[in-house]
This record gives sequence, structure tokens and C-alpha cells, in this order.
Amino acid sequence: MRVAVLGVGLIGGSVGLSARRRADADVTGYDTNAEVLEEASSRGAVDRRAATVAEAVDGAEACFLCAPMTELPGLIADVLAAARRDCVVTDVGSTKRTIVAACDDERFVGGHPVAGAESSGVANAREDLFDGAAWYLTPGKASSGLLYERLHHLLVQMGARPVAIDAETHDRLLATVSHLPHVLANVLVTQAAGTVARAAEPLPRVGPSFRDATRVAGASSAVWTGIYTTNAEAIASEIDATVDRLLEVAARLREGSAEDIAAWNDAAREDRRRLLEADLSGGPLRELRVSVPNRPGIVARVAVALGRAGVNIADMALDPAADMRSGSMTLWIAGAEEARRASRLIEDLGFPVVEA
Amino acid sequence: MRVAVLGVGLIGGSVGLSARRRADADVTGYDTNAEVLEEASSRGAVDRRAATVAEAVDGAEACFLCAPMTELPGLIADVLAAARRDCVVTDVGSTKRTIVAACDDERFVGGHPVAGAESSGVANAREDLFDGAAWYLTPGKASSGLLYERLHHLLVQMGARPVAIDAETHDRLLATVSHLPHVLANVLVTQAAGTVARAAEPLPRVGPSFRDATRVAGASSAVWTGIYTTNAEAIASEIDATVDRLLEVAARLREGSAEDIAAWNDAAREDRRRLLEADLSGGPLRELRVSVPNRPGIVARVAVALGRAGVNIADMALDPAADMRSGSMTLWIAGAEEARRASRLIEDLGFPVVEA
Repeated sequence: MRVAVLGVGLIGGSVGLSARRRADADVTGYDTNAEVLEEASSRGAVDRRAATVAEAVDGAEACFLCAPMTELPGLIADVLAAARRDCVVTDVGSTKRTIVAACDDERFVGGHPVAGAESSGVANAREDLFDGAAWYLTPGKASSGLLYERLHHLLVQMGARPVAIDAETHDRLLATVSHLPHVLANVLVTQAAGTVARAAEPLPRVGPSFRDATRVAGASSAVWTGIYTTNAEAIASEIDATVDRLLEVAARLREGSAEDIAAWNDAAREDRRRLLEADLSGGPLRELRVSVPNRPGIVARVAVALGRAGVNIADMALDPAADMRSGSMTLWIAGAEEARRASRLIEDLGFPVVEA
Repeated sequence: MRVAVLGVGLIGGSVGLSARRRADADVTGYDTNAEVLEEASSRGAVDRRAATVAEAVDGAEACFLCAPMTELPGLIADVLAAARRDCVVTDVGSTKRTIVAACDDERFVGGHPVAGAESSGVANAREDLFDGAAWYLTPGKASSGLLYERLHHLLVQMGARPVAIDAETHDRLLATVSHLPHVLANVLVTQAAGTVARAAEPLPRVGPSFRDATRVAGASSAVWTGIYTTNAEAIASEIDATVDRLLEVAARLREGSAEDIAAWNDAAREDRRRLLEADLSGGPLRELRVSVPNRPGIVARVAVALGRAGVNIADMALDPAADMRSGSMTLWIAGAEEARRASRLIEDLGFPVVEA
């Protein structure tokens, strides 16, 4: 498969490495910074360097747009203008609502790999960066099922776990599990620095809890300003909810009994256990065959329905019938119980399912 | 040296292991749970098992009280009643103000090792648990200099970095760098669990930022209820300050420009850099000789003055003059600049200093 990677830093470089080595892809790279592109090439992340976006995209069957959030809208338009009719185009931006809302091309599927590293830049790119990591996909209403399936399959080959989700839900969930923790880390370091400076006191030998809680403080503004601005309201709502909870804790500390405080702490432990437990999924793969009409949006509808219910699609394949008016979709789901849930959800959409 | 360890879980067991193996101490252990004491013995954390507190303390030159906060006041009284006149008694409770205020015995020095592990219990005790970790010491007004020095020296042998600090400052700093991060972690998991449950949405594949930010959520209530109740007001004040900062961030997200948001994020990065930088200390050890009157409280006064200014005492030794009315104190300080600061601070207290 011919793949174009636009922007070859940590994420783009890792896309190139995993696509080349694991999916046997032929990768053309482009970057606005010639030195970065040179390094990506010397590290084996790209087969070929392109001098322009159009040159990179020419002949590609899949394009990964790995630019900062602020540059994505313009880049998506340029790539779609230059790409083939049957090329799937995806981005790796950390928020999805504004991007998906602005693009109704059937070739575009929004994406967001939940993977990162302590350090950015192509020097830290790795073939295994996405191993086992969730890679959210946010198809729009117009997204082609065939192209969605191609992308899903490629991501599985690259080691990721693609999860379909609608863009609004994605942004709201990420506000809770990623953007809010970044805000709290920022606030925590600033508060600690203020305490220390104001009191001319010894610098606290920070313990492990502080280090863990502030590891992501002040993450790259080049990346995060785009996230904060494109998901501002969802993050601000999360902050408001956090403020309410914090005021409740302060009141409990000032007035509550030891039993009250222990009960609050126990409840948090229980919440953490549930979250960790729910994040585990597993079991042997089950194969489901679904008969679907061969028209735009169907594959995405199935994928989003399962994603919304928390069912992970380990892999998928499409097989159009000879008349091209219908087709069968094969889904692989980990675990018997998950496969049964998936069957019921797909039947609810009106499509026949059999477990192979 | 004969050491008694009262409570031989993770911390007490590690005290026993490091005192035996590194300070060649003879360790007697006691625990209210006979099975725990048995396991501490089989793991080599104690030489001898005592059946009562009094038996454990009998003949000891240093006692470590490693019980939960709620049990410490009673245990301190019992130990002081049974201990020798020249036995230094210390605890490892995570807050210090209430404990130090309640005890004016010259043998008592409050303590708090900033060390922990993912898992509690003597099964996880390690000889190297305290290596390089800060071990706060909060001597009271009456604390004996000679006994303080014995404890300091023993802790250095055990691998820790003792730091003298007054109890109020300790509790305020720990509220910022430890207790507040625990509160935020609790609030974060509860909020995420609520979002997920309320919306019947897919469980977010939690990324590394969420895992880091919530690692300490719902930490043992047996330990933390005591911390929250004994430091309630300081923690509640930290929460209030956090709430103010969060509301400011929410307003900035809703109304601010991208430049505003980037500036806020950049400031957090700068604060983090300063905190991390300040936590480093180093350089070759310098030796300072201080002449001091040989009376209670002097050693602690010097240690607290340096601790308050952020100067770390790598090691210390006391050498009473023949008449026992004066003495010299030798301090080892890492780094030339730190040693110069230490000299000035000690001179400000009225004691002559020479750098050896």
C-alpha cells in the first residue's frame, strides 16, 4: 500500500516506521522542516521524501496528517484536493469535533492515537509506539465504509486498537481523561512554585505523588494550545465540575468526621478499581459475519455503535458482493461475552449477524 | 546500636532491614499483628521479636514508631514511659504538627520519611527503600541535641537524607506537594467514573496522563484518614487556592485568546522546571565546624535554620568538650555555595563557624 505521511515528528515518524515494517507499506514523507524530513529518512521512517504536499499525496492510498491542530484545517483541504478518489485521509489531532464538522468529504476519517512519549520529535519515533494503544476513529456522516475499513485494517497491522467513536463523545471523554489532568498538573506546579517562592521556605523534596501528578505539566504549547482552544467549553465544564467536588472535599475536611473522610477516600478507591477493570478487555477472538447494504456510512455506523458501547473491534474486513449493492463485513471481537454484545447491537441496527 | 521498631509493615520493615544491614544495628521488633511480626523476622527485618512494647523498647538506644497516625499519641507515651533516659524516640507519621505539639520530652524527635512503594506490607519492605529519599525531622523545643545527632547519623547510614524542618512548615509544604495531589487524584477518578457511568459511554482507553494523575487515588484509608484529619485546615486552604486557580483557567478557556492560553501553559512549564531544578542538590561535601554551647535545643536550632533555608545537611557529628559545657558540631554540606550559605546562617545564630 502507498502511504503518505505529512509531518514526520514523533507521531508521523512512528506511523512511517510501523507502516513500513509491519504493513509493508511504501511511505512518502513530507515536512515543512527539511531537516526533520531528512532525519525521518535516515531513521527509516520514510522510503521517499516529497518536496510538496501534492507530491507526497500523489498516488497514495492512505494519507496521515500529523501536523499541529492549528494547521490541520488548511492541510486537510490541500490533501483532499490533491489525493486520489479512493485515498483515505486521516489526521492525528487530539480533538475531533471542529475538524470533523468542517469536512464532509467521503475520503476523510478523523483519527486520534492515544499514544505519546516523554519526548517529542522524530528522534523518539518508534515502530512500536502504537502497540496496544487505542486509536480513536471519528468517521463523519459521509465517510466511505470501504475507506474506513482500509484505515482500520492498516492501523491494526501497525499494532494499534482502533476504536470508532463520534467526535462529540470523543472530545468530552478526552476532556475528562486527558485535558483535565493536564490542567490540574499545570495548576499544581504553579501552586507549589508559589508556596515555595512566597515563603522563602525550603524547597520541598517532592515525593512520588507530586512527580506523578505533575509529569505532564506545561506540555508543549505548540500542541496543547490547539487542544485547549478547540475543546475549550468541554474542558471548562470539567473544571467547573472539579471545582464543585473540591469545595465539597474542603467542607468535609473542615467539618466532617474521620468516618466521612474515610468513606470519601474509600469511594475514590472503588472508582479507580472500576475504571482500571473496565479498561481491560480480552479473551480469544470471535468472528462475526454481518450482511450490510453496500452504501456510504454503513461501516462507520456499525463501528460507532460498537465503539459507543465499549466493544472493541480487534479487526475487520469488507467483502462486497458481485453486484456491489450489498456485502458482508467480518468483525473480530475479543471475548465471547463481548462478541454476544456486539451481535445484539448490530441486530438492533437491522443487520443480520452470524458468529462464524 | 540497639534499635526498636514498633510496627513492622512496609516502613517499619524497611527501617529494620536498612538499620541491620547498613548500620549494623541490633533490631528488636514489635507488632500488634503476630503474623506480620513473624514475617518481618523471617525476612530478616528484625533480630528479635518482642511480645510487648515495653519488652521491645527495653535497652534500645533508638526507637522507630511506625504505627498509623491515629495510634501514635498513645504509642509515643507508652514508649517514652518504658525507654531509657538516653534513647532517641521518633515516629514516621506523615503529619507532624499535632504530634510534636503533644510531646515535650527531650528524647522525642518527630520524623517523616518521604518514601513509599506501590504496595504496603512487610512483604514489600526493602533495605534500600530510603535511598536518597528526604527524611524530615521535626525536633521540638526540648529535643536533645545529642539524641538528634544520633538519629540523624543513623538515618544517613540507612541511606536517607535527613532534613530538619519545623512541624508547621512541614505540614503546610506536605499539604501542597503530597496531600493536595492525593485529593486531586481522588476527585479525578470519581469524576471520570461519573462521566462514564452517567453517559453509558465507552470506557475511555485511559492514556498515560490519566494513569499518572490518578496513581495515588484512593490510597489506604488506614493511613490517609489520619493525614487528612490531622492536617485538615492546611489541605482545605490548598484546595481553596486550587479552586481559585481552576476558575481562572476556566475563564481563560472560555474567553481568552490562544496567546493567553499559551502564556498560561508556558508559565506552568517554567514553574515545573524551577521546581525540578531546585530539587537537585549536589557537589562535593564541604565540612563545617561550629562551636556551640552544650545545652538542649542548640543542635535542633541549627538544623532547623538550615532546613528552613533549604540547605541540606548530608551528615553531622557532635563532639562535646571535656567540661561538657560546650562542644563542636561538624556538619557536611554538599556544594561550595550551599556550604557558604550554611556558614552565614549559623553565624547569624551567633555561633562561630570554620570551613575545614
